[in-house]
Amino acid sequence: MTVNGEFPGPTIKAFAGDTIVVNLTNKLTTEGLVIHWHGIRQFGSPWADGAAGVTQCAINPGETFTYNFTVEKPGTHFYHGHYGMQRSAGLYGSLIVDVAKGKSERLRYDGEFNLLLSDWWHEAIPSQELGLSSKPMRWIGEAQSILINGRGQFNCSLAAQFSNNTSLPMCTFKEGDQCAPQILHVEPNKTYRIRLSSTTALASLNLAVQGHKLVVVEADGNYITPFTTDDIDIYSGESYSVLLTTDQDPSQNYYISVGVRGRKPNTTQALTILNYVTAPASKLPSSPPPVTPRWDDFERSKNFSKKIFSAMGSPSPPKKYRKRLILLNTQNLIDGYTKWAINNVSLVTPATPYLGSVKYNLKLGFNRKSPPRSYRMDYDIMNPPPFPNTTTGNGIYVFPFNVTVDVIIQNANVLKGIVSEIHPWHLHGHDFWVLGYGDGKFKPGIDEKTYNLKNPPLRNTAILYPYGWTAIRFVTDNPGVWFFHCHIEPHLHMGMGVVFAEGLNRIGKVPDEALGCGLTKQFLMNRNRN
Amino acid sequence: MTVNGEFPGPTIKAFAGDTIVVNLTNKLTTEGLVIHWHGIRQFGSPWADGAAGVTQCAINPGETFTYNFTVEKPGTHFYHGHYGMQRSAGLYGSLIVDVAKGKSERLRYDGEFNLLLSDWWHEAIPSQELGLSSKPMRWIGEAQSILINGRGQFNCSLAAQFSNNTSLPMCTFKEGDQCAPQILHVEPNKTYRIRLSSTTALASLNLAVQGHKLVVVEADGNYITPFTTDDIDIYSGESYSVLLTTDQDPSQNYYISVGVRGRKPNTTQALTILNYVTAPASKLPSSPPPVTPRWDDFERSKNFSKKIFSAMGSPSPPKKYRKRLILLNTQNLIDGYTKWAINNVSLVTPATPYLGSVKYNLKLGFNRKSPPRSYRMDYDIMNPPPFPNTTTGNGIYVFPFNVTVDVIIQNANVLKGIVSEIHPWHLHGHDFWVLGYGDGKFKPGIDEKTYNLKNPPLRNTAILYPYGWTAIRFVTDNPGVWFFHCHIEPHLHMGMGVVFAEGLNRIGKVPDEALGCGLTKQFLMNRNRN
Repeated sequence: MTVNGEFPGPTIKAFAGDTIVVNLTNKLTTEGLVIHWHGIRQFGSPWADGAAGVTQCAINPGETFTYNFTVEKPGTHFYHGHYGMQRSAGLYGSLIVDVAKGKSERLRYDGEFNLLLSDWWHEAIPSQELGLSSKPMRWIGEAQSILINGRGQFNCSLAAQFSNNTSLPMCTFKEGDQCAPQILHVEPNKTYRIRLSSTTALASLNLAVQGHKLVVVEADGNYITPFTTDDIDIYSGESYSVLLTTDQDPSQNYYISVGVRGRKPNTTQALTILNYVTAPASKLPSSPPPVTPRWDDFERSKNFSKKIFSAMGSPSPPKKYRKRLILLNTQNLIDGYTKWAINNVSLVTPATPYLGSVKYNLKLGFNRKSPPRSYRMDYDIMNPPPFPNTTTGNGIYVFPFNVTVDVIIQNANVLKGIVSEIHPWHLHGHDFWVLGYGDGKFKPGIDEKTYNLKNPPLRNTAILYPYGWTAIRFVTDNPGVWFFHCHIEPHLHMGMGVVFAEGLNRIGKVPDEALGCGLTKQFLMNRNRN
Repeated sequence: MTVNGEFPGPTIKAFAGDTIVVNLTNKLTTEGLVIHWHGIRQFGSPWADGAAGVTQCAINPGETFTYNFTVEKPGTHFYHGHYGMQRSAGLYGSLIVDVAKGKSERLRYDGEFNLLLSDWWHEAIPSQELGLSSKPMRWIGEAQSILINGRGQFNCSLAAQFSNNTSLPMCTFKEGDQCAPQILHVEPNKTYRIRLSSTTALASLNLAVQGHKLVVVEADGNYITPFTTDDIDIYSGESYSVLLTTDQDPSQNYYISVGVRGRKPNTTQALTILNYVTAPASKLPSSPPPVTPRWDDFERSKNFSKKIFSAMGSPSPPKKYRKRLILLNTQNLIDGYTKWAINNVSLVTPATPYLGSVKYNLKLGFNRKSPPRSYRMDYDIMNPPPFPNTTTGNGIYVFPFNVTVDVIIQNANVLKGIVSEIHPWHLHGHDFWVLGYGDGKFKPGIDEKTYNLKNPPLRNTAILYPYGWTAIRFVTDNPGVWFFHCHIEPHLHMGMGVVFAEGLNRIGKVPDEALGCGLTKQFLMNRNRN
């Protein structure tokens, strides 16, 4: 899928405080679509969040829908489809917010680049969806390529001369070819901001620039305490900015490598070139590209996450929570179909968007009973579920306005074998503080003591590591209905999400155009009818 | 795509005079859908015709739409998706209407079978659609298999022992296997009615039963003057009944073969077995299956069409027409994209269904200017178009109520090479009389003299042969908006259709549920608003 004929879609650039207006016309043949503005909190415009079934109806083929929202602070973001698995189909692009006009950026750099990372399969998305919904489930497998700004390599390598795999030939494209990697041209002895975001369907990635250190300065649209690293882990749904100083031999070029971590990789590293303009752009680096750290070195991964602290002067979290959820992540079966479930409920979003159902109090729009707020504490997270059967549901968690909520996401073992997977959990409508990570089962009354309440990072995506827990905190200050889900596309498709609602009596006007489906459509058509 | 988990969808059986109620729930992930009841005229229920963009909006995922219509006369019909290329995706099934309860069937037979014929590609439909809409156009190619009731052979043959193609192995499935052909079990010395219908995406077919004559008795739900044939041509959108008498050696079985005609075939014949119950069902016939007549023997094809006359007592056409359209079929280019056009307009159905736009007089729903009612008579149909560029449009032909309309469909040469293709034209909402066929360009004032006004067959699908014309006549006695289009799925996708509207001030109530998209949705949401 393309946006205005481009893949990835065009980069949207704005200044903090701007109002962004997007007229989205659906030119697909039979599929509806929406676009989610990932990382934008949508204060006062919850209907513009672009999550089908949650905040709006899918836009029908031939129709135009207008998103209208304000971007209140600078940051590196992206946008993507949020209906079925249309993100996997290529419906995404970057959304970059600069500091407000007239204000100065606190970071110092001489130039900037933007790298949107993704993964790519050759199997068509409807076919992938069908496989995931089949009995037995047919898994999508590992990506055929990793893409940097929509470009990648398949069955060839830019660094073939260093490869032990002699079957992999050298890629033959030249710079400027439509499919050639986008080369980063830099001048010596300058500092560049490289914006990174990952909209992968599945892959957890690691990026490194040969011979160069990276100073991480921004995470998910929030300034962090800068730290220096040789390489950076980036999970689906995350974004970062790193500063890179061009302090290496200016007669050489350097590989930028992006490899898979967290799952046993079966995808060649994506490569592009950092070109010092003092060297010919076509000159390949003289040594092999950085090796991606071992995929299953989860301690390394956790240590990376734990290096991220909010910048000085960032808002601190409230000291206490008022509501808390403990959300157990399990893989389950329903009538033999493989699903993911949270506290034993596998989410199926209803045909009527929640925002419409709560706005117009349509009782039949979804199950008004809250899903479980915790799980049975005798559940053994280290082994496959003893009773793998579960159920689907569409209930949501409703919070009062302006209270502090803690959510503990708790990992567990999958259906078969002794395995626990990584899940990047993304929250719509909020930044949250990541208070801490832990191994094993979260112990209420004890593990809270390990929380970082001083300078936890503000994020919109938090990583749940194998067999561990992650604790986040946020304040329900944004009236609306907000998706919270694993950002791995097939996991969400298989039910791995929950929905939060807050400040429901403070939700403002929702454009009728957002609610032209299901019960809201019926309601609006019959409204004020004689 | 399946219906209730079945492919083809379940056969709907009814008696003449019955009201059929179908609750259609869309369980697809992101695609809307509709179902068209092919051959049912929908008197008084034009909103239930199931043509997306014409008579209703697509039904969104998660929603249920109720079709409710009367089947007023007996006949062999089918149903299928009519949105994008969802028919090609497998969304179809049979719809059989028997004589009214208490009335007796005028045909005499001892048993009946129903064979729904289709063609099948391995490439997913979204990918096919994308190729057709690409520049340059990527054609779908010939089908991988022909299917009889959803079953066919691929890379194997039931008659491999007779094949010169030694690379084609014997099919190994057994009767009862899910993918095994459905065997027709018959008793000796009986007469069977075999109902045939073709919902192919592309293929023109020919069916023969080894050693048996076929007596053709019904075409498109209308009795015809019986005639005997060795084999029967059947085009996409057509249906027939044939009577077969089991008068052959009852110790043998016989091949039923279905092969491709009209296009250079690249698809193996589909085969199944006529099993005399006096022989073992597993016994293969001892001689090769019937050979499909030469694909490009168009004279043979035309001669077959010309053997079809209405049954005694059938209604005769009015002697004169009041309105006439002459519709030139051409292949064209729009900005380098390959399209089909009628009188130089390539149809793009609007986001707002025509039926809603005319019902509520929504001026912006479509272009109110009629498309051309004829073409420039100096156009050379025997050669590629000298000026291949054309335009898209969504105008329609509006007729008064209860007038006689003639439509001459006129074939021409395609874009490149000296080629003219077969097009089966299907009309919704009506049976029409097929008044005649001719070669070359229709000559007004002369060719009318060749019309059969005595016993022309009533059909809903008429074949347009290469470089020729076909004349049909109908009476605008069914208030509504009716699609008239080439039944070849990719041709329709590329714009090969027109729309007729009649008796617009007599259109009754249209359920709001049919109009939940585009401008009608806006209109209905704002209706009676304070």
